[in-house]
Amino acid sequence: MTSTALQSPPAAPLVLRRCRDLVAPALAEAIGGLHPWVAEMAGYALGRCEIGGAPATHSQGKGVRQALAVLGAEAAGGSGEAGVPGAVAVELVHTFSLLHDDIMDGDALRRGRPALWKAYGTGPAVLAGDALFALAVETLAAGPATAHAAAAVRHLTTALRDLVRGQADDLLFADRPWTGPEAVGVGEYEAMAEHKTGALLGCALALGAQLAGAPRETAIALDRAGRHLGVAFQIADDLLGIWGDPAITGKPVHGDLRQGKKTLPVLVALNAPGHPALAGLLASPADLDDSGVRKAAALVERAGGRAGALREARRHLAAADALLATASLAPRPAEELRSLLSSLAHRTI
Amino acid sequence: MTSTALQSPPAAPLVLRRCRDLVAPALAEAIGGLHPWVAEMAGYALGRCEIGGAPATHSQGKGVRQALAVLGAEAAGGSGEAGVPGAVAVELVHTFSLLHDDIMDGDALRRGRPALWKAYGTGPAVLAGDALFALAVETLAAGPATAHAAAAVRHLTTALRDLVRGQADDLLFADRPWTGPEAVGVGEYEAMAEHKTGALLGCALALGAQLAGAPRETAIALDRAGRHLGVAFQIADDLLGIWGDPAITGKPVHGDLRQGKKTLPVLVALNAPGHPALAGLLASPADLDDSGVRKAAALVERAGGRAGALREARRHLAAADALLATASLAPRPAEELRSLLSSLAHRTI
Repeated sequence: MTSTALQSPPAAPLVLRRCRDLVAPALAEAIGGLHPWVAEMAGYALGRCEIGGAPATHSQGKGVRQALAVLGAEAAGGSGEAGVPGAVAVELVHTFSLLHDDIMDGDALRRGRPALWKAYGTGPAVLAGDALFALAVETLAAGPATAHAAAAVRHLTTALRDLVRGQADDLLFADRPWTGPEAVGVGEYEAMAEHKTGALLGCALALGAQLAGAPRETAIALDRAGRHLGVAFQIADDLLGIWGDPAITGKPVHGDLRQGKKTLPVLVALNAPGHPALAGLLASPADLDDSGVRKAAALVERAGGRAGALREARRHLAAADALLATASLAPRPAEELRSLLSSLAHRTI
Repeated sequence: MTSTALQSPPAAPLVLRRCRDLVAPALAEAIGGLHPWVAEMAGYALGRCEIGGAPATHSQGKGVRQALAVLGAEAAGGSGEAGVPGAVAVELVHTFSLLHDDIMDGDALRRGRPALWKAYGTGPAVLAGDALFALAVETLAAGPATAHAAAAVRHLTTALRDLVRGQADDLLFADRPWTGPEAVGVGEYEAMAEHKTGALLGCALALGAQLAGAPRETAIALDRAGRHLGVAFQIADDLLGIWGDPAITGKPVHGDLRQGKKTLPVLVALNAPGHPALAGLLASPADLDDSGVRKAAALVERAGGRAGALREARRHLAAADALLATASLAPRPAEELRSLLSSLAHRTI
């Protein structure tokens, strides 16, 4: 699959940059209050500096979650500024989860650089994640102790619970068989993806709206939209993990197949009638070699796994779109939000 | 140093048991809402079950922090029940910090059993810690979103920030020299101990009181008392780490000296005039052998490190006592609290 970045509405990078610029001072202030050593690790993890604190030479993340919080506030009729504490909190939670997930998954690379645990050690990376986690909650709980602040914290804790639950399921999927009654079902997979990826996207949107004074039903619709979006993004990741261009993904071709990862295209293919060759290949105890993974990718595609996963991703995107369309949102920010989401989705699917 | 458990007021184990019994249902309910795999790990970490979920054959921890939250509520004139959400939260935070600290410190044993990361793997132990952390915040943020709930969460986040800061300093102390301008000072050490151990003890007491409707100044006095207490406990740990009876501590004799840990008795001894032999011994690049650690322990004692550390611990205990005496607390619970603290302290110092 090649990048289709040219199809993106040109506005998307600008929207992301505008939101990043709006959030940057508050994010920097929050990080600056940490223990200096932890602040350096946080800066590295956020792409704000290199190892040892030298100025950043790599690009930062896109900042999708912070943008969703800002756009959520604007779509609820408030100012983008109103969403900033929520934006800082979700960006910190996202970074915390990447730090700890990289340890759990043994991923040594993150955005083309050594993962934090590779650069600073496992113990310090655990600590830095904890610090960002605590800082995220503190950011929302700071300021006057109001019912409003309590509701925002509660929203974040719901996302945190789902995040941990999704990561737990994802780790456990690795030990489950490919076929038979113990196999991972498509529904189970999508629940995992909703928890692991969707909950925080939904939280970002809803938290932004809530901080801008949105009514409860608007926040709920935005939360649900974000959850569908998360499933679509996770499926897009799966598609890239098998058919993505290594020059763009920064990961080896067919990497997820080589690692035997339970991804949606494979699960869909195994659910299609007549897949004994694929099941046999995946069940072989030895790691697949180059020709094995090529063969597996072809079998997944022939059994409809690629098309089926793409269909699922599009279904979740449409559901997110429908929820945004029915929520009472300010027209211009809602349009910007939809265009951003469609651009992000079309980058990969 | 031998145990002086016989000097403890007989009430202390009963007080701890009463508080554990009061908190147990809420703690079990909170844990029960976790992902089943994570719940099993949490049960193991809390001493409620063995590996695989089998009934516990080892004793649980004493539950000092949950007891402080319950007694804090009672001392503020409320019921112990009022302090239960705070008790659950601090017990979860304490367990989370033990799980992650054991990973960072490479400690393979905890309460005579394999540490969670040894029993379930590093990744799962990171995840279980994250889950307990999130659950702690969720416990306080649950229920009606009130200003009261927001204040409780804010109190907990302050303790969390200090906890991370103390752990960061403790990790960094390992790489600092024993002498010279870069050496760890006694004041620095005590700030680390206050953050790492005292903040959560203070939070437990103050959170319990706050949940029972205590005025702000009472909560502040209790928080400060808990912080002094934490420094005293940490010093007691240091004394046990050098002169403790292995049959009681479950750790090798002189273990902290063998590992070259920056403990208060050694720092005090190095600050005394005329310690070239000790400094030379500690600065030797090779690990100390049995005769080396025995010699080091004797040098620390001769330079006044043991007596000086004991004096510091007693000073902090007296400061905690004085704060409790000046706070307006209900007489009977306050007496129970003081007797518990004195019993815990006299166990070791």
